[in-house]
Amino acid sequence: MTFLPSKVPLIQAPMAGAQGPEMAIAVCRAGGLGSLPAAMLTPGVLREQIAAVRQATDAPFNVNFFCHEEPKPNPERQARWRNRLAPYYAEAGLDASAIPAAPVRAPFDAALCAVIEETRPAVVSFHFGLPSAALLQRVKAAGALILASATTVAEARWLESHGAGAVIAQGREAGGHRGLFLSDDVDAQPGLISLVPQVRDAVRLPVVAAGGIGDGRGIAAAFALGADAVQIGTAYLRTPEATISPLHRAALANARDDATRLTNVFTGRPARGLINRFVAEIGPMCADAPQFPLAAGAAAPLRAAAEKRGSHEFSPLWAGEAAALGRDEGAEALTRRVWTEALAVMSGLSGRWKE
Amino acid sequence: MTFLPSKVPLIQAPMAGAQGPEMAIAVCRAGGLGSLPAAMLTPGVLREQIAAVRQATDAPFNVNFFCHEEPKPNPERQARWRNRLAPYYAEAGLDASAIPAAPVRAPFDAALCAVIEETRPAVVSFHFGLPSAALLQRVKAAGALILASATTVAEARWLESHGAGAVIAQGREAGGHRGLFLSDDVDAQPGLISLVPQVRDAVRLPVVAAGGIGDGRGIAAAFALGADAVQIGTAYLRTPEATISPLHRAALANARDDATRLTNVFTGRPARGLINRFVAEIGPMCADAPQFPLAAGAAAPLRAAAEKRGSHEFSPLWAGEAAALGRDEGAEALTRRVWTEALAVMSGLSGRWKE
Repeated sequence: MTFLPSKVPLIQAPMAGAQGPEMAIAVCRAGGLGSLPAAMLTPGVLREQIAAVRQATDAPFNVNFFCHEEPKPNPERQARWRNRLAPYYAEAGLDASAIPAAPVRAPFDAALCAVIEETRPAVVSFHFGLPSAALLQRVKAAGALILASATTVAEARWLESHGAGAVIAQGREAGGHRGLFLSDDVDAQPGLISLVPQVRDAVRLPVVAAGGIGDGRGIAAAFALGADAVQIGTAYLRTPEATISPLHRAALANARDDATRLTNVFTGRPARGLINRFVAEIGPMCADAPQFPLAAGAAAPLRAAAEKRGSHEFSPLWAGEAAALGRDEGAEALTRRVWTEALAVMSGLSGRWKE
Repeated sequence: MTFLPSKVPLIQAPMAGAQGPEMAIAVCRAGGLGSLPAAMLTPGVLREQIAAVRQATDAPFNVNFFCHEEPKPNPERQARWRNRLAPYYAEAGLDASAIPAAPVRAPFDAALCAVIEETRPAVVSFHFGLPSAALLQRVKAAGALILASATTVAEARWLESHGAGAVIAQGREAGGHRGLFLSDDVDAQPGLISLVPQVRDAVRLPVVAAGGIGDGRGIAAAFALGADAVQIGTAYLRTPEATISPLHRAALANARDDATRLTNVFTGRPARGLINRFVAEIGPMCADAPQFPLAAGAAAPLRAAAEKRGSHEFSPLWAGEAAALGRDEGAEALTRRVWTEALAVMSGLSGRWKE
């Protein structure tokens, strides 16, 4: 029925910094494929989170990693970035000389791979390309189905020829970080309605549609386009299982279709979020932002200071273009609802145009 | 079955400068809604083209107009634009002092409205908003169903409250000019998969999905999203009925999913086309480009000179993100094929996920 080991061909998008095992467990209980984002976890914490999922459910789940290149130190760019942010530091009464290091976002490595070999999750997904051939071979040998994100047909072909087991076709509408890895031109990424059929025609692997899908209508549309499964992220940020701030939650509840932008000001890599002061004034895209994930260091104190005042103007408000379709409900209920909606939409379509 | 007067709920997108009555006739013969783009026509030529369609078919058809504001003269911006283009003029051996006026793209006015009252087409569509209330009332009184393009939910709501009869939800993927009229921020326009359900939920009018739909899969997806009809443009540029240059045709045959950009360098308004030298070097978006449609004047001689050498590097190569899904076939055959495909996709979906 589906190439995924889950009952329902719906993947809860892994959202680093926004969720932990609770969300994955709830989605698994509804028959979907729950995901653990490991990009900001140490091997030890990842091991604990996998154990927490296993204790709650026998269902298969997904563990997600980033595979970006480690940033090269670039003191001049860092200096330009600090200069750019200096007026905001002054406004907030912060000491610009005491900027902390960026929170760790380590690419997939031997230590994380050892956790996969030890715990053998059914699915492992990668963002920003794939790890080295040697590491990928170890993940395969551990029995995992390997998913990876493509933002263009060229990236989908690359993933197929480099050993992925399925391609996540990520449309421009998607919230959070673009998976792009062959080009850094954000305007090369097509919208999902154009991307999915072209990826479908270009590769033999199963295709997962991701980006801008907010309810059962989007799921049904993805299957019409030729997808074998779908991945949904932003809608899950409205669930109590999400660990986002109340400010982010409130912004999502007021989201509009036209109010997100692709911005690199929070991490150095382009990601989609709701417009706020930091995005509007420094970005949306800023050439001075240091290489991912270094940009996050200098921005973090501004965010902390603003959030203390109850302001989200310096917070990353990750959201896809369908954020306004979200509701406040549990992750298990959300998974069941959108799948039921999708089945109803699909069965309604066949009779609609009888002639 | 459909709110449109055509048998099949598929509109051939009006493409000014790229087609005439032949394409509209062929689409009407297949049961679709053929369109006549009138944005670059005088009232007299429009009258002749409508007569040509009527002579060939009894089927209903659509006449499309622009309703942009007339540009305000801005000699400084014009001077900046000419300076920007001067090196290209020099390279091509052209006299920059003899730049012709831009080709006429007149907004809908009383003279064009008189042709509508006289000929009474079943459908009239508008791009860049709506005409004045008085003109709109005259078009309605002539019996036409009025369609207009929205690129955001806010624009869809505006069109509903200002008298449109249906909303064309144009996704970011669309080729050619964005219909935007409440904002000039091109990044406000969502992808179709997010836009259609949000417009569907926001207005009571019928919704037409447009942008990035290249075959029956996209049509089926649009219906899954809640659309009542679809509009397809780029795929029709591959038909013999299209009046585009052989250079544009060849570029479309080699189109890739990641090779279009939104650019204002050809007319002053953002439109999607394939990347070439002019787009890459002057744009894609250029703040010096004069207000629509004035930018077209200074660019035209560069295009003419390049095309004489067999080069498309200065030509507008309008294309949507699904251009690569196109084929060489007639407009009637294309209409029938994609509709048959869509029916097959829709009927296949209902049984796919039986549990």
